[in-house]
Amino acid sequence: MKARIDDLAAFGGRPLFESPRPIGQLSVPGVEEYLGLIAESLDCRHLSNDGPLVRRLEGRLAAHHGEPHCIALANAGLGLMMLMQSLAGGRRGEVIMPAFSYRGLPHFARWAGHRPRFCDVDPHTHFLDLRSVEEAIGPETTMILGVCNAHHRGDAAGLCELARRHGLPVVLDAVYAIHAAAGVGLGAPEAAAEVYSLHATKLLAGFEGGYVVTRSRAVADRLAWQRNFTLPAFRPDHGGADLDHVLGLNAKLNEFHAGMALASLAALPATIEANRRRYAAYAAGLQGIAGLDILPYANPKTANFQLVILAVQPPWPLSRDQTVALLRAEGMAIGGYYAPPLYRGWEPPAFELPITEDLARRFLQLPVGEFVDAADIAAICGCLRFIADHGAGIGPRLAGGGAA
Amino acid sequence: MKARIDDLAAFGGRPLFESPRPIGQLSVPGVEEYLGLIAESLDCRHLSNDGPLVRRLEGRLAAHHGEPHCIALANAGLGLMMLMQSLAGGRRGEVIMPAFSYRGLPHFARWAGHRPRFCDVDPHTHFLDLRSVEEAIGPETTMILGVCNAHHRGDAAGLCELARRHGLPVVLDAVYAIHAAAGVGLGAPEAAAEVYSLHATKLLAGFEGGYVVTRSRAVADRLAWQRNFTLPAFRPDHGGADLDHVLGLNAKLNEFHAGMALASLAALPATIEANRRRYAAYAAGLQGIAGLDILPYANPKTANFQLVILAVQPPWPLSRDQTVALLRAEGMAIGGYYAPPLYRGWEPPAFELPITEDLARRFLQLPVGEFVDAADIAAICGCLRFIADHGAGIGPRLAGGGAA
Repeated sequence: MKARIDDLAAFGGRPLFESPRPIGQLSVPGVEEYLGLIAESLDCRHLSNDGPLVRRLEGRLAAHHGEPHCIALANAGLGLMMLMQSLAGGRRGEVIMPAFSYRGLPHFARWAGHRPRFCDVDPHTHFLDLRSVEEAIGPETTMILGVCNAHHRGDAAGLCELARRHGLPVVLDAVYAIHAAAGVGLGAPEAAAEVYSLHATKLLAGFEGGYVVTRSRAVADRLAWQRNFTLPAFRPDHGGADLDHVLGLNAKLNEFHAGMALASLAALPATIEANRRRYAAYAAGLQGIAGLDILPYANPKTANFQLVILAVQPPWPLSRDQTVALLRAEGMAIGGYYAPPLYRGWEPPAFELPITEDLARRFLQLPVGEFVDAADIAAICGCLRFIADHGAGIGPRLAGGGAA
Repeated sequence: MKARIDDLAAFGGRPLFESPRPIGQLSVPGVEEYLGLIAESLDCRHLSNDGPLVRRLEGRLAAHHGEPHCIALANAGLGLMMLMQSLAGGRRGEVIMPAFSYRGLPHFARWAGHRPRFCDVDPHTHFLDLRSVEEAIGPETTMILGVCNAHHRGDAAGLCELARRHGLPVVLDAVYAIHAAAGVGLGAPEAAAEVYSLHATKLLAGFEGGYVVTRSRAVADRLAWQRNFTLPAFRPDHGGADLDHVLGLNAKLNEFHAGMALASLAALPATIEANRRRYAAYAAGLQGIAGLDILPYANPKTANFQLVILAVQPPWPLSRDQTVALLRAEGMAIGGYYAPPLYRGWEPPAFELPITEDLARRFLQLPVGEFVDAADIAAICGCLRFIADHGAGIGPRLAGGGAA
């Protein structure tokens, strides 16, 4: 516990944690369970190319999401690249995407031959603002990439309806929007595809990996072909010349990741329950601290409580970046949430995006996942309370702020 | 054994093998050894992002290849894509590549924003023909992609010298050209980078994975940054504006694959010795069959004997494709070698490529790797000898040939 300002690690005190507390899920199944799962694949040496565990995983994930098709991939980013490449029908143009999201998005669009076109987001859901999208649509637009966030899935159905009017495909990056309940979709059946991650830091973990769910047989077959180099022998027998422009690469998931992901899927209710308890402990521990607000989950019944996102604003005595710097010094491997805006380093948007600018200054992520226990959360909340009580003395000593 | 033509599986006989005999290496380490290796990573949950096993693997692979830098990747194709993207300095143009190689190459160039420019190959080494390259170089050329093959590494040094005169970077796809001896390079220090695979079917197997070795610190640092989304926090501190055009994605190798690859690297001498024995058994078993010739390894001291490539030509009674069809029916998961030429389905080359056209009709790959034992090889050679002896009766019954 901190008694004096000098006890803060930023000013030379002893850090709260010796080993960093992360912001990722990092659940692993029991080694026995995992070995049992992969034994079959090891025995038959069907290790990588569309093996038995990959097929089982695809079936179970399709059922979980309530969609008919699932294609497992080496990672989610490759899924976005392949969809953006193949859905454009050979065209290269602009992909509309939110400016308030994670840094990979515009890179994936560029790999697929497109330019990113950044739009503003809704202040509450952080999903694409539909008026901003409507303004951005033009002759160069090839598709719309929406991002469904952890705390609120956003108006995906509204986006699909808007896109339908303009004849544009919609891809949803729904990495953080996995429902707790099986068989519940995002409510956007018109979307061409939804993309999810199986990275070790995510809710469902195959250590690495990703997958796409879709209602479209054509999209699923094309992606299955694309992830395997578009080898001529496996060309889908429908689609015709529409397939000539499709680029392939190696984006297959292998059996080891699929085995892990199957174990992780079986453990999903327990993982979410642990997340919910951590989230509740943070909410209780930060109760009444002025200027700190945890972003609430819109639907607690289906929420996965994976992230704890903290809004920082006056009368909290420090900026978001100063707060991040203080907490990092205490041994928390945290950072700002979706900051800075995505267009930094790219061509700036034609219009001002005031909501994105505001949100990108406001949030940080608190430590979560298997490496954070109740005592850790109590210590973190105690530290934040100490900062609240001593803000007048801390602020001036942090002249210049911390790292962004 | 086949006694009559009707005993061939293609004509209704019982296949030689009930489960398919593959053309990939498919070695796996002992489960105990593997678990010992990954225990450390599991304990600290450092599963994916530049973990301890990845670092150890990179050090050992660099030493094996005799180069200072190694960057481990999710697969070899992503390595080629990232190098072709970043080495072009923001330009999009033509990548010169051999027309006699595997089908992924032109796709990788397209993902990187370039067009493939196909060149002919040397009739003996199957490496890029330097005169064909010289003819193809023009204002649109951004780089040269050479492929070093299993049986002969080719004139990589000559290609680098030619490229240096034209101010072009060279990338070498050396997936099949891993030396048996440690510390021995390809003899092309001027190449920007060499790309290798860790796929389960390859000599060194991490189930999935790939890596790049290079003499250039700048290339290595850029690739390490690129494989991790080009996150701003990890931007290399040299390179300056040269880095602005670099696209990132998730191409990291994780600890599970790195652990497997470390075990595979330790087993390399034993794997190569087993390959050498299989190769010798095929050579002895096919001795004296007119029109069948196994492609010899140029340097048996450093060769890995990974592939057994069979040239099929008169007086052998059947075409290559007919031979492939007969052997596939017998339970061999084989195909033509680098067939058809790579430009099928792409813009045809400006010049005729007679060597490629000839080679692409000539070779097939025989079953190899851990799933093929001495009895299998004896049976395969016996079957080929039966075909040689009964060719006059078989050919007419295969009217129209088999699958390509």
